[in-house]
Amino acid sequence: MNPLFFPEILKKLKRGPQVVLPKDIGVILAYSGVGKNSLVVDAGAGSGWLAISLANIAKRVVSYEWREEFAELAERNAKKAGVEGSLEIKRKNVLEGIDEKEADLVTLDLADSDKAVARAHAALRKGGMVFGYLPHVEQAKRFFDACATAGFSDIQMLEAIHRNYLVREAGVRPENTGLTHTAYLVFGTKK
Amino acid sequence: MNPLFFPEILKKLKRGPQVVLPKDIGVILAYSGVGKNSLVVDAGAGSGWLAISLANIAKRVVSYEWREEFAELAERNAKKAGVEGSLEIKRKNVLEGIDEKEADLVTLDLADSDKAVARAHAALRKGGMVFGYLPHVEQAKRFFDACATAGFSDIQMLEAIHRNYLVREAGVRPENTGLTHTAYLVFGTKK
Amino acid sequence: MNPLFFPEILKKLKRGPQVVLPKDIGVILAYSGVGKNSLVVDAGAGSGWLAISLANIAKRVVSYEWREEFAELAERNAKKAGVEGSLEIKRKNVLEGIDEKEADLVTLDLADSDKAVARAHAALRKGGMVFGYLPHVEQAKRFFDACATAGFSDIQMLEAIHRNYLVREAGVRPENTGLTHTAYLVFGTKK
Amino acid sequence: MNPLFFPEILKKLKRGPQVVLPKDIGVILAYSGVGKNSLVVDAGAGSGWLAISLANIAKRVVSYEWREEFAELAERNAKKAGVEGSLEIKRKNVLEGIDEKEADLVTLDLADSDKAVARAHAALRKGGMVFGYLPHVEQAKRFFDACATAGFSDIQMLEAIHRNYLVREAGVRPENTGLTHTAYLVFGTKK
Repeated sequence: MNPLFFPEILKKLKRGPQVVLPKDIGVILAYSGVGKNSLVVDAGAGSGWLAISLANIAKRVVSYEWREEFAELAERNAKKAGVEGSLEIKRKNVLEGIDEKEADLVTLDLADSDKAVARAHAALRKGGMVFGYLPHVEQAKRFFDACATAGFSDIQMLEAIHRNYLVREAGVRPENTGLTHTAYLVFGTKK
Repeated sequence: MNPLFFPEILKKLKRGPQVVLPKDIGVILAYSGVGKNSLVVDAGAGSGWLAISLANIAKRVVSYEWREEFAELAERNAKKAGVEGSLEIKRKNVLEGIDEKEADLVTLDLADSDKAVARAHAALRKGGMVFGYLPHVEQAKRFFDACATAGFSDIQMLEAIHRNYLVREAGVRPENTGLTHTAYLVFGTKK
Repeated sequence: MNPLFFPEILKKLKRGPQVVLPKDIGVILAYSGVGKNSLVVDAGAGSGWLAISLANIAKRVVSYEWREEFAELAERNAKKAGVEGSLEIKRKNVLEGIDEKEADLVTLDLADSDKAVARAHAALRKGGMVFGYLPHVEQAKRFFDACATAGFSDIQMLEAIHRNYLVREAGVRPENTGLTHTAYLVFGTKK
Repeated sequence: MNPLFFPEILKKLKRGPQVVLPKDIGVILAYSGVGKNSLVVDAGAGSGWLAISLANIAKRVVSYEWREEFAELAERNAKKAGVEGSLEIKRKNVLEGIDEKEADLVTLDLADSDKAVARAHAALRKGGMVFGYLPHVEQAKRFFDACATAGFSDIQMLEAIHRNYLVREAGVRPENTGLTHTAYLVFGTKK
């Protein structure tokens, strides 16, 4: 199987088993339209890959992480990636409340992300988006339903599948084996 | 079929039949690691969707477009999207040369993108990336080979496939019909 | 979008909106290993496409259909396809019992296929397989669980996705749009 | 990664590295409409998996194999599978000619399958189909073009992709890694 591809900013970072991969980070970036003027709230930081990718682009990213071990790993990774000026790791459980207001995007990658959806709605500006990263169908359905309950519009659930190709003298063909699933991606817009 | 999803910045823009869609824009953003300090060269502008998505993030984007009609459309779209401060539409055929130096990313979406690969290499900084958007396998193969000839490393070809889900009382399932192909995506890194 | 492909035996048949397509029929044939000596039980017949495809191969197929309208349609289609000698349409609700014994394969395509799984187990020979055709994830999960409860082994759930290609002077590429989902396929083996 | 699934008739057979898998065998069965009255020509036999799967269904299968080692392996496998009564392994290179006439299906899995297409056309009945199993795009294109040259109609090229699911207490999701490519499948019909 082909090694996974990582951009320069992520290449040297330490990672746990469950980082959000570039395949899915790309969907978050493109669907949210996050840009250099954006304020983003992220939870939980984990090893910080998604938060760092967002901080490489956005004006400011606040990433919630109540587990000290991960908070420190995320901060070390942010320094290595050179984005520590735009990224604050906040030692707090996002389920206890989001301090930021008028955020452009809230990204949620927790075991119980659906429980944070109402707080995400409160923290977002009109037109802002919530995103959930959900490995199982049942979680994705719960998150989708929580978005509807919290008042989000244009809620959608999707998967991003990448097919990598071998290009050689013998000819072109997709790799024989590869990554076939990471997570379902759910987006909602605050109208 | 589900309507395609577009972020706020693209939603109101005019588009021709061949714009690069968010599905593929996301891969470019995530794989290149383009950020708020980046310099990006793009060609051709077309209706400007990719250039605008990049200008929403990067410090500066220069998009080559020698066809006056498209150059004007791209400029109008850039104003509507509010990114005209970061995006220059340059009336010039990229095959005649790239003026910029030390670019972080060069994105190519031309009928004969492979012919611009050597110029892209010259315009990039060390560690910078070239990207090609190529509808047919044969074009993608030619672009891939041109990257090797021009001295690029870590050349890779892939497709991004999105599966959209219906989430309803009756249950969860993928849409019955949908978008099944746009283009092959090829990336190379200047080492 | 490309027209769907049908083999000679199915081409001239009438079809309702929900026939099992060759894409999925192929998985049933290959995974079950059904052959010219096989006894197959099918329910419900619907317009008979799956039953006819099986009867083209197996020694004998008994297809349950309690709705007279569909039973007649399936019989007419069987005659057109020339397989009426191997296919019996039985006017009976499969949930009320399966008369056959030592079947090699039981195929279920009902709104509540999970309720027929125990009866399928009783009708099968050792080594025989049950198959469920289930459009929604939740149905597929219920069917999967019902297979476990009924004592089936090697239970598996999968989807079959076909990508159709355009091959032209301009080059080779997948179709731009197409069929992206029909149903989840679940198989269990009686050990 | 999930172990590949094989039906009873294939489970105990020896296999080389390049057998046609049930995923693709299913497409051949469903698209060709091969049945218990069919005559099938196959080449090359290899370890005999495709030929055996066809012989489990068809009245008669003749599989060409000029390499003695593989011819013997295919014959041993046919006996183990119990289909030796319907399957003849013919020691002959199919490129030197097909002896059978009025075949319903000719399946080709050779390094240079495109060179056998004209002979396949001659061996088929009107309405019969040729099938090619082609790992690389370029081979598939050559085979497709050879079908057009030989006078075949309704020529089509496709891939079959299976997604396997994990169904557990924690929830339902596709396997994280898996088989992502075997071969392009090309079919043509003699009109």
